[in-house]
Amino acid sequence: MTVYQATASAPVNIACIKYWGKRDTKLILPTNSSLSVTLDQDHLRSTTTSRADPSFDNDRLWLNGAEEEIKESGRLATCIKEMKRLRREVEEKDPSQPKISSYHVHISSRNNFPTAAGLASSASGFAALVSSLAALYALPSTPSELSIIARQGSGSACRSLFGGFVAWQMGSRPDGSDSLAIEVAPREHWPDIHALICVVSDDKKGTSSTSGMQRTVETSTLLQHRIKHVVPARMQAISEAIRARDFDAFARTTMQDSNQFHAVALDTDPPIFYMNDVSRAIIALIVEYNRVSVANGGKIKAAYTYDAGPNAVIYSPKENLKEIVELIIGYFPQDQPFKDPFGLFGTAGVHGKVVTGFNTAVAKPFGIGAIKGLIHTRVGDGPRVLGAEEALLGPDGLPKAT
Amino acid sequence: MTVYQATASAPVNIACIKYWGKRDTKLILPTNSSLSVTLDQDHLRSTTTSRADPSFDNDRLWLNGAEEEIKESGRLATCIKEMKRLRREVEEKDPSQPKISSYHVHISSRNNFPTAAGLASSASGFAALVSSLAALYALPSTPSELSIIARQGSGSACRSLFGGFVAWQMGSRPDGSDSLAIEVAPREHWPDIHALICVVSDDKKGTSSTSGMQRTVETSTLLQHRIKHVVPARMQAISEAIRARDFDAFARTTMQDSNQFHAVALDTDPPIFYMNDVSRAIIALIVEYNRVSVANGGKIKAAYTYDAGPNAVIYSPKENLKEIVELIIGYFPQDQPFKDPFGLFGTAGVHGKVVTGFNTAVAKPFGIGAIKGLIHTRVGDGPRVLGAEEALLGPDGLPKAT
Repeated sequence: MTVYQATASAPVNIACIKYWGKRDTKLILPTNSSLSVTLDQDHLRSTTTSRADPSFDNDRLWLNGAEEEIKESGRLATCIKEMKRLRREVEEKDPSQPKISSYHVHISSRNNFPTAAGLASSASGFAALVSSLAALYALPSTPSELSIIARQGSGSACRSLFGGFVAWQMGSRPDGSDSLAIEVAPREHWPDIHALICVVSDDKKGTSSTSGMQRTVETSTLLQHRIKHVVPARMQAISEAIRARDFDAFARTTMQDSNQFHAVALDTDPPIFYMNDVSRAIIALIVEYNRVSVANGGKIKAAYTYDAGPNAVIYSPKENLKEIVELIIGYFPQDQPFKDPFGLFGTAGVHGKVVTGFNTAVAKPFGIGAIKGLIHTRVGDGPRVLGAEEALLGPDGLPKAT
Repeated sequence: MTVYQATASAPVNIACIKYWGKRDTKLILPTNSSLSVTLDQDHLRSTTTSRADPSFDNDRLWLNGAEEEIKESGRLATCIKEMKRLRREVEEKDPSQPKISSYHVHISSRNNFPTAAGLASSASGFAALVSSLAALYALPSTPSELSIIARQGSGSACRSLFGGFVAWQMGSRPDGSDSLAIEVAPREHWPDIHALICVVSDDKKGTSSTSGMQRTVETSTLLQHRIKHVVPARMQAISEAIRARDFDAFARTTMQDSNQFHAVALDTDPPIFYMNDVSRAIIALIVEYNRVSVANGGKIKAAYTYDAGPNAVIYSPKENLKEIVELIIGYFPQDQPFKDPFGLFGTAGVHGKVVTGFNTAVAKPFGIGAIKGLIHTRVGDGPRVLGAEEALLGPDGLPKAT
């Protein structure tokens, strides 16, 4: 008896040009294009196993071991239905193919990062879901074609179908068939872009991005100007910066667009705040760190960016990471030793320190816990199809115990 | 021997439509019109005495008892020079007038609120300076004409030449002769608009508004849209709301424009933040307080607004002030009893409390000192000419000891 099962993993991506606003909430069609860096799956990933079996009574899904309801015409149901439709096309073209599109599926998914880290897992999660089903169904679809389906699960998930530097082209067709991800450059083009994720504590629960972005669309008097006049130029500028490996231009555009996304959130009625005093302090540190470099005839060395929460992601060429970690740790003491997965820091560990000429008064030092964790990673590859030994479903078609 | 001396006081004003950006930095011509509420001088004022005397060797000025340098072609020198020019016109028209325009002046100015309160004193200060010189020189000038001179001292000072509700019309002439303040409505039109000023502690020194607004003009890609398309409509909407005594519309526009000012500050490169976590929490409380009212079929009861700092000013009709003070004190405990200058609160004092149906989870309670002071005031009148008994200069032409 054949087991129809496949396992895939998919990466997290963090946008440099931000997605904020839908023109179609059902199909998840954005009001502007966006661009992101895919982060390394060796550090942050979602892994998903999908199985199709005639004995299954229903489509079922488990996330980190707990079953999630697949709501009728919800986002999960839409993705599964669309993937089955693509499989049916394969079966119709090639009648020798087994008719597994008619079977129910069991899906088990896990994130290797804790939910408490405050990192959005919907992008990597939907990308892994679509990738595992594409492998299960042996689809001939390209990553861009699959991105159209992942997009309907969670908008930014479409960008996790590629590694490296990825654009989500907003498209113009009402059916969303041209609203998809494309690769701007693979990770091999510019592999030494590293990222330091600062996981920031927050007392208050923020506005969900789904409801927040629609409130911005409805009430901000600045958003339409951003959409029509600012983002198109920035998409072009940052794509060129990536192709030219021009970190200075990449960083300037990244920081400006993070700021503008939070500006239109603040221009919403009632206003939406995602950054807090810790986020503001990290910005002040990076601004000062760059100022010192430029004052000494150098270039911008780091770029901060913030999604719909207080966490900072700091992009920088690999050679600056030690200085950046020393800077952050100096103002935000950690109760755990810093994990250095790349061997950049030597064996003596890393301690708080600022570069020569740094004005330490730009921020006040915080206590332990203000930044509750640091994750050092880098640009990574796209979804991976994994071997059977990595499967998350047992022989009974239920999630394996961890 | 005649003593040529006059004393005047002038009020603080807090804008509802914000001034942010100059099209001419020397003449202080703004990139957009703005509108403010003048606050009551009984609570917050600058008082200035000016004397012209042939025995004085130089123009001199003391602020709160300490002498300030009058820099050549600086803002103080410009205002004094312009006022002397108007006096000369009077003397030329009427040769019987004493030729006091040729005398040097001594000027002593005091604010009745501590600098540590973080309230901008430049608006009331320059308005009092111009008003005292206008009285000294017995000028026939209208408040709008005087506002042109106060504007050259500090832009927003022009709005403190009137009481009530005041517009600063941006004008279009290169010489600034039509960039002046006009009265939208006197305080008697809508006297029960009260204001609660929440003086918020801040660890970090913010960007000065003079340098901040020019950085926004140079780098924000959203500011021009605000200037051209958003502010003109808001100036009209809020003026109509004031004329109709429509607090709901007044409050919505005030809050939206405060948010948008901070949004364009954030859209600046590097970004400018004036609000901190305490400011954000006050916004969350006012949003929730209004939500409860609207959910119960009522109207918006309070409007927050923030200038270039973390302090909140909450505008509200008088009848809501008790609820608002109870709300603020509940989340921000005070170590001093609340001062109630209007007798609205009874003799039992005021204690923390929220209205029925209030979701207390919208903010977390802070400790003592997060809001370091509360000032309860209301819409007020324009500059006042005071009697000789209020003079701040002694017979020797030097500041009186306090």
